[in-house]
Amino acid sequence: MTETTDTSPGWLTRTDLDEVRGRLPIVYVNAVPVRVDESGSVTSVGLLLGVSPDGSISRSLVSGRVLYHERIRDALLRHLEKDLGPVALPQVPASPQPFTVAEYFPTPGVTPFHDPRQHAVSLAYIVPVTGDCRPRQDALDLVWFSPEEAAGPGVAQEMSGGQDVLLRQALAHAGLAP
Amino acid sequence: MTETTDTSPGWLTRTDLDEVRGRLPIVYVNAVPVRVDESGSVTSVGLLLGVSPDGSISRSLVSGRVLYHERIRDALLRHLEKDLGPVALPQVPASPQPFTVAEYFPTPGVTPFHDPRQHAVSLAYIVPVTGDCRPRQDALDLVWFSPEEAAGPGVAQEMSGGQDVLLRQALAHAGLAP
Amino acid sequence: MTETTDTSPGWLTRTDLDEVRGRLPIVYVNAVPVRVDESGSVTSVGLLLGVSPDGSISRSLVSGRVLYHERIRDALLRHLEKDLGPVALPQVPASPQPFTVAEYFPTPGVTPFHDPRQHAVSLAYIVPVTGDCRPRQDALDLVWFSPEEAAGPGVAQEMSGGQDVLLRQALAHAGLAP
Amino acid sequence: MTETTDTSPGWLTRTDLDEVRGRLPIVYVNAVPVRVDESGSVTSVGLLLGVSPDGSISRSLVSGRVLYHERIRDALLRHLEKDLGPVALPQVPASPQPFTVAEYFPTPGVTPFHDPRQHAVSLAYIVPVTGDCRPRQDALDLVWFSPEEAAGPGVAQEMSGGQDVLLRQALAHAGLAP
Repeated sequence: MTETTDTSPGWLTRTDLDEVRGRLPIVYVNAVPVRVDESGSVTSVGLLLGVSPDGSISRSLVSGRVLYHERIRDALLRHLEKDLGPVALPQVPASPQPFTVAEYFPTPGVTPFHDPRQHAVSLAYIVPVTGDCRPRQDALDLVWFSPEEAAGPGVAQEMSGGQDVLLRQALAHAGLAP
Repeated sequence: MTETTDTSPGWLTRTDLDEVRGRLPIVYVNAVPVRVDESGSVTSVGLLLGVSPDGSISRSLVSGRVLYHERIRDALLRHLEKDLGPVALPQVPASPQPFTVAEYFPTPGVTPFHDPRQHAVSLAYIVPVTGDCRPRQDALDLVWFSPEEAAGPGVAQEMSGGQDVLLRQALAHAGLAP
Repeated sequence: MTETTDTSPGWLTRTDLDEVRGRLPIVYVNAVPVRVDESGSVTSVGLLLGVSPDGSISRSLVSGRVLYHERIRDALLRHLEKDLGPVALPQVPASPQPFTVAEYFPTPGVTPFHDPRQHAVSLAYIVPVTGDCRPRQDALDLVWFSPEEAAGPGVAQEMSGGQDVLLRQALAHAGLAP
Repeated sequence: MTETTDTSPGWLTRTDLDEVRGRLPIVYVNAVPVRVDESGSVTSVGLLLGVSPDGSISRSLVSGRVLYHERIRDALLRHLEKDLGPVALPQVPASPQPFTVAEYFPTPGVTPFHDPRQHAVSLAYIVPVTGDCRPRQDALDLVWFSPEEAAGPGVAQEMSGGQDVLLRQALAHAGLAP
């Protein structure tokens, strides 16, 4: 998962965090931003566009750490605002039940998810957004895809760490073909 | 479940429907209208206020039949509009996964849910509403309760058919004390 | 959905049922039989093997109608026994919450699911089975696939009515790549 | 949440863990052990019996930390074995989707859940067990309650940290009156 610096003051210095990351699973959230029609049907899926260290294009879901003494729904809101801007108007779900839990292991192959830096346990939610999305920070842009495009091989190839699997799990949960 | 006449033209006459009701389970939807804050937390729960045949006050969830060739999300929207009015702006969930399935049996005691008229299989959803609610038809009013009040014995006593159980199951799903 | 004659005495004659099918959505269940290891991980997925009217091979999930005055969990058990035999030892889930609701429409394209005979609203569950599976009735056999094979194009091609989509939605729900 | 010493070798010393606990949310699992009948209906709920520091009786759910590089399902299995003994034969769910996420805060009142020692994010699952339960370690016993007893005020009074709420949320998820 691509991580951007937390906008809130941290409870751990970067060095402390790096040390803990090798010894404890870290609580994360993943959000799949979607546009829905009046009946709640997903009409498009938003993916963050970035540039990988090797210069290639990369696409990713909204993701980030849950801080000490922060509720999951507040972490979702904070990361959505960080990645989609202040007027995206995300509808954070009323229920804490995630559609899945993505377990990112530092060792590839244990689960479909991989993060070389850490063992992250990520609660994943579909989040409808109704406002304007203006990515801040290191994301270049937010691009909207039709559900069919989002499930296709072109998008999958540009995602890393198994986020293409998580994206297709989200589509499946929304009643669409994954 | 209290039923109001369908506003859309029916595919079955009342007599036909009565006959089928004694021989097949009927597909229903139940919606629990809620107000949420910016982080998605449920701040209040809406219950329809009506008058029972015996003159006592009754409270109920939004509920109704799914018609032939109607999607579940369209049935939800139709019954929400029927019961909360045209400007309630309900946010029908992106996922078809209900928080539970309430099986209303004509025989009491098989499940916590009972409907003397029929065997209804009801898909239940929590639906945030952001607009103005102006009940139409036979509902007298929509009254908002705090989650604590909604889970209490006073409200339970005014609900029938096991809808108080369904309401508390909805609160549980929203992460609240049921 | 392939349907076999109900082994229990019906509440509707075939003619009655055909008539109702054109006027009301019918309540169905779909079960995805799986083998799991000690930790609950899905190791294989069972698909029923049949022969289509045109002589080609077809694969399908366990599916069938919920009868009047029958609980969903009893319908699941009945159809699993009908399709997998009496010693399959299915573990019907403790929760009535399905992983999804598949809406089979008589008109293709409304949802990913299609059934030319009827509008079926099908509650879908993943069901681990631990015993011996000996298909009865018109199924030729039950064949076990690895999750990877089950998600592949070869299997999808042999399924109809959108059941390949439902199968991949089940894999997604089980935390696997769909 | 009552915690017993991990039976597996730890990745953190007790002192290290105590320090991290004040600075990061810790990943936990909660399991609600149940007995089910052939159709999957919950017939009883198991609660661990212990003695509080003040000598009073306390009842609790199975709970414990997820270790570094441990899958959630393996943590569930480990804690179930630790608390119910080696022949309980728990059926860990096929899906990683928890029925809820209980957020235990060190500050009471933020959520219904409270843990003075830490901020724990606990993924909660209902786990049918079919074998013999013989609690080990500091639990005195495992006692089975009917769903009605489990939801009652007597049991609630003997649970702490909001686990009575989590228990009733589990009953709600199982389709029972919470």
